[in-house]
Amino acid sequence: MLRPVPHNQVKLTDRFWAPRAAVNRRATLPIEHEQCRKTGRIDAFRLDWRPGRPNEPHIFWDSDVAKWMEAAAYSLADHPDRRLEARLEEVIDLVARAQQPDGYLNVHFTIVEPEKRWTNLRDWHELYCAGHLIEAAVAHFQATGRRKFLAVMCRYADHIAKVFGRGRGQKRGYCGHEEIELALVKLYRATGEKRYLDLAKYFVDERGRRPHYFDREAGKRGDVPAKTAKRSAYSPGDQPYEEWQAHAPVRGQKDAVGHAVRAMYLYSAMADLAAETKDAKLAAACRRLWKSATERRMFITGGVGSARHGERFTFDHDLPNEFAYAETCATIGLAMFAQRMLGLELDGRYGDVMERALYNGIPSGVSLDGRRFFYANPLAVHPEAYRHADQGGHVAPERQEWFGCACCPPNIARLLASVGQYVCSQGPGQVAVHLYAAGETKLDLGGRELRLEQSTDYPWDGRVQIAVRSAEPAAFILALRIPGWCRGAKAWLNGRPLQLARLVRRGYAHIRREWRDGDVVRLDLPMPVERVSAHPAVRHDAGRVALQRGPVVYCLEEADNGRDLNAISLPRSARLTARFDPRLLGGVATITARAERESAAGWENRLYRAAAPKRRAVRIRAVPYSVWANRRPGEMLVWIRADR
Amino acid sequence: MLRPVPHNQVKLTDRFWAPRAAVNRRATLPIEHEQCRKTGRIDAFRLDWRPGRPNEPHIFWDSDVAKWMEAAAYSLADHPDRRLEARLEEVIDLVARAQQPDGYLNVHFTIVEPEKRWTNLRDWHELYCAGHLIEAAVAHFQATGRRKFLAVMCRYADHIAKVFGRGRGQKRGYCGHEEIELALVKLYRATGEKRYLDLAKYFVDERGRRPHYFDREAGKRGDVPAKTAKRSAYSPGDQPYEEWQAHAPVRGQKDAVGHAVRAMYLYSAMADLAAETKDAKLAAACRRLWKSATERRMFITGGVGSARHGERFTFDHDLPNEFAYAETCATIGLAMFAQRMLGLELDGRYGDVMERALYNGIPSGVSLDGRRFFYANPLAVHPEAYRHADQGGHVAPERQEWFGCACCPPNIARLLASVGQYVCSQGPGQVAVHLYAAGETKLDLGGRELRLEQSTDYPWDGRVQIAVRSAEPAAFILALRIPGWCRGAKAWLNGRPLQLARLVRRGYAHIRREWRDGDVVRLDLPMPVERVSAHPAVRHDAGRVALQRGPVVYCLEEADNGRDLNAISLPRSARLTARFDPRLLGGVATITARAERESAAGWENRLYRAAAPKRRAVRIRAVPYSVWANRRPGEMLVWIRADR
Repeated sequence: MLRPVPHNQVKLTDRFWAPRAAVNRRATLPIEHEQCRKTGRIDAFRLDWRPGRPNEPHIFWDSDVAKWMEAAAYSLADHPDRRLEARLEEVIDLVARAQQPDGYLNVHFTIVEPEKRWTNLRDWHELYCAGHLIEAAVAHFQATGRRKFLAVMCRYADHIAKVFGRGRGQKRGYCGHEEIELALVKLYRATGEKRYLDLAKYFVDERGRRPHYFDREAGKRGDVPAKTAKRSAYSPGDQPYEEWQAHAPVRGQKDAVGHAVRAMYLYSAMADLAAETKDAKLAAACRRLWKSATERRMFITGGVGSARHGERFTFDHDLPNEFAYAETCATIGLAMFAQRMLGLELDGRYGDVMERALYNGIPSGVSLDGRRFFYANPLAVHPEAYRHADQGGHVAPERQEWFGCACCPPNIARLLASVGQYVCSQGPGQVAVHLYAAGETKLDLGGRELRLEQSTDYPWDGRVQIAVRSAEPAAFILALRIPGWCRGAKAWLNGRPLQLARLVRRGYAHIRREWRDGDVVRLDLPMPVERVSAHPAVRHDAGRVALQRGPVVYCLEEADNGRDLNAISLPRSARLTARFDPRLLGGVATITARAERESAAGWENRLYRAAAPKRRAVRIRAVPYSVWANRRPGEMLVWIRADR
Repeated sequence: MLRPVPHNQVKLTDRFWAPRAAVNRRATLPIEHEQCRKTGRIDAFRLDWRPGRPNEPHIFWDSDVAKWMEAAAYSLADHPDRRLEARLEEVIDLVARAQQPDGYLNVHFTIVEPEKRWTNLRDWHELYCAGHLIEAAVAHFQATGRRKFLAVMCRYADHIAKVFGRGRGQKRGYCGHEEIELALVKLYRATGEKRYLDLAKYFVDERGRRPHYFDREAGKRGDVPAKTAKRSAYSPGDQPYEEWQAHAPVRGQKDAVGHAVRAMYLYSAMADLAAETKDAKLAAACRRLWKSATERRMFITGGVGSARHGERFTFDHDLPNEFAYAETCATIGLAMFAQRMLGLELDGRYGDVMERALYNGIPSGVSLDGRRFFYANPLAVHPEAYRHADQGGHVAPERQEWFGCACCPPNIARLLASVGQYVCSQGPGQVAVHLYAAGETKLDLGGRELRLEQSTDYPWDGRVQIAVRSAEPAAFILALRIPGWCRGAKAWLNGRPLQLARLVRRGYAHIRREWRDGDVVRLDLPMPVERVSAHPAVRHDAGRVALQRGPVVYCLEEADNGRDLNAISLPRSARLTARFDPRLLGGVATITARAERESAAGWENRLYRAAAPKRRAVRIRAVPYSVWANRRPGEMLVWIRADR
């Protein structure tokens, strides 16, 4: 079993992540603290809100603060900052004081509706909030070594373990919004207390069993059962309980369904548990759900969740571009799921998708200045269409400063503050490198420290050099991911060519050796610009290509190409030229090409006519999807019309 | 000024309309009567509903019944039917008895909320209901010569004229859902009473003036004014008052905006008034709104209203196919507007659009068996997508038996029962033929009867023969529409070629002559299958073509072509073959071609890859859009991918 090498052992000095992480520290974290403060989310933990006052604590507010705390803890681990630390400790004090004598800890159900504690697990996010606080406490403990917050959350987890379970007098429930499960695995790993792993396993195993807890619970409330409630406008296409991935016990689930963030968090916990408990059936379910999510229901950006209504998965190959939801949180969840599948088994499919999400659909969620956020991440935008559609603020053609439901901003903050954790994994006798990025990774190999130094300009250049730094020789397998997008990869060990064909198994080159200080592996991963097609059943992308170079997916923006991006067509013969532009959008490789643009000349007042529009040659410029919408608002398009 | 030749002077014997009209009489009219009866719409006129009972009369129920009455009256004029007549007379008796002593006549505001009479013109459809009852009364009078119903509605119109106007104590209001205006013009034409024309003019002229009536009225109710209410989810893209075309006085309106049915009904009345009053400014506004609606905001089927939310126009060139609303009523409204523009000035642009709506987006609204109806008429359908979208029953991939808001079924019934009225217009010294269809039109030329006999298999064949039947010679201009879709039209008079280039002015060939019995004009309107492109700014149709032959727009259906219609692409070289199939879908010309279909072979579990999908040759068959969804449910597609 491989475990991620924690972010605080990974120092990135690259041109993609390091600047993002710096902006995250300098701009995003303070802004989000301020948003949590001024919206009352932090003060809510004082438990002094009273009916009639403003800022009534919402059921999911705790989780927004928790994710900010987790992000702050990660940041402190790598970059000591007294002001940030003071802010974090202040919030921790508030959270700790909000804990009830019995261990319970939830603002809304302590002061707003105390009588409703644990009465609607389906809709009210109590365990979800608990999970995020647990993740924050683990991060804080790992960053500082201080146990105070961790102890608070252990007490809460122990309380939860008393309330829920299969024993007499216990509730056989589980949360409508998964999160507690993966958090408990983290708590188990941080504390070594197996009871937290057991509780996670209980929540995962109980899910979807009959008689259905959500209905029994609804009955007690005198509420409609979920079965009938399901055929609501909210998610009309779902089967009963699919919204919460509670339509069947998890080992029997076949497709990625329902609310996409919840699905990703559940599947992440399932993968963790399958690895921890060597549960083959659970692992098989994980693989099945992985395939459903990534081989039939994922946008090319790594986004998941096709529909705004229900923020959810729809059906195979349904990937609408303008109306893509692809919530930032869901794409982050997909990276988490991928990382955990890599913990279960080393396979390039997981690494490839993790990379796809990390370089595309996740960073698109935040502006380059770290101050504005996307909740939904569409793959095509016509600003006027959004003005006219029935879209909430979550779906807008420009990033927003904050949201009433503010899950995405702190989620991306914690991702960016800990992105180093996605670079490597480590297990007995094995180190796997998933992501290439300039920087240094410290490893502990059975008590011996060892460093891997990466020199590369990845993702803008495919040449990677990895040097081993070790005081003494160390025998282990170094497994290097050969990306799925790459054809013709080459590798050298200390200058001598390696026979990759013989070394690569499931997407990783396994180099077994007694490694010595100064050993150098060089990779050459050619990254020409590719025209990527979607599966023919994806009706939205028919006759179109997306441009991809290395792991980076590109888009056309109005700022570079004018309006009516769909009037542009890429001839088959067009040469696509990539060039790094250090002054553009924080430094990105752009792609330029000669293309053709249909002209409105000759159409006068006609809307339809029996002659194809005339075309003129134009030069187009594509920029990485991850940095779109950082200039003036306008159209955007990932899938470009392609001439055959 | 040209006036339509009434439907009861036109006898159609063609293969397109005659069977539709027969089904309308035999199936649709009885079904709709039964629906109105069993849902309580008819009995509501008994005024004996009481709070707490089922079937509370809704504010727009009167209009549903009225449209059925109008349709029944049209049908009786052409096809005496004692049972239908008895049903109609029974309903007329109920309606007449429901009239209040002061002339007021509205079920809801007589028995459900009498205290709210005339207090919310913006939202409550009172004058809209009045308008439809007036249209029904005029139709009944013209069909039977009986004045009873007409007298009832004149009394109501007189009551309305007392309540509304610019005099002391009158309300300076107008209806949020236009309809009364065009109905009053009809009432004026039927009775010769100019006061009804004046009242129509008042309603049209008052619209959009400041201070805004809707706000003053809202203020009196203690309600939010429309200005602020507007930024609702209902129509977020609109400017204040646009939903009701009340954002500016009508002569200053520039774009077709807001609720599409309302817009069409208003513009129809404006065109009527411009013709009746020779109001050049009003005529100019009509032309401007016509251009906006048909040159920038109309689907190729003649559908208008791009957005489900608000059932409304959005912005130029925004014509989404899967999410097209294109309400049946709105397309009917467009035909009404076109017919009235032809009354203002003879121009082929109006005739062309009228024809487009009549042969495509209107008949698609009802099944071939006359028993099921579309409310929305999308141009692409993936049934699974509808299951998963947040769509009400109004938007479904299959026709429905009825709707809670049942405006469309009786609207299409009255259209089909009177479709003959769109064939010809007549004015002093001039007869214009707009539509070609086998049958006979009786004309009254200054007291002399004259007949035009059309022999043709239009719209399946472009050869048309028009014979004049007249006891005595008659001098007049016969203006024949040369359709805008047609290139290379030829004509002969009594066997001698006509120089069309010299005769055609604004889309009509004007043949001035002393016509004698037996004179024959022959037209040859070549109708090859055309690949139609949309304006390059229509992003939804980019890289695609629609197939059109003559006035008929085609589509691909899953029943003929399998699933994944977007995997099909039409090569530029593909020959398109039309063939009439008398056994298919009631008898239609189909189009077949060799095309290419992308294959999923080789994709295995991949969703994206850097190679274009392989293709195989397939035979495709397209059927007229007007008859889609008459077989098993499945995908449908109008805009087909086209190789360049």
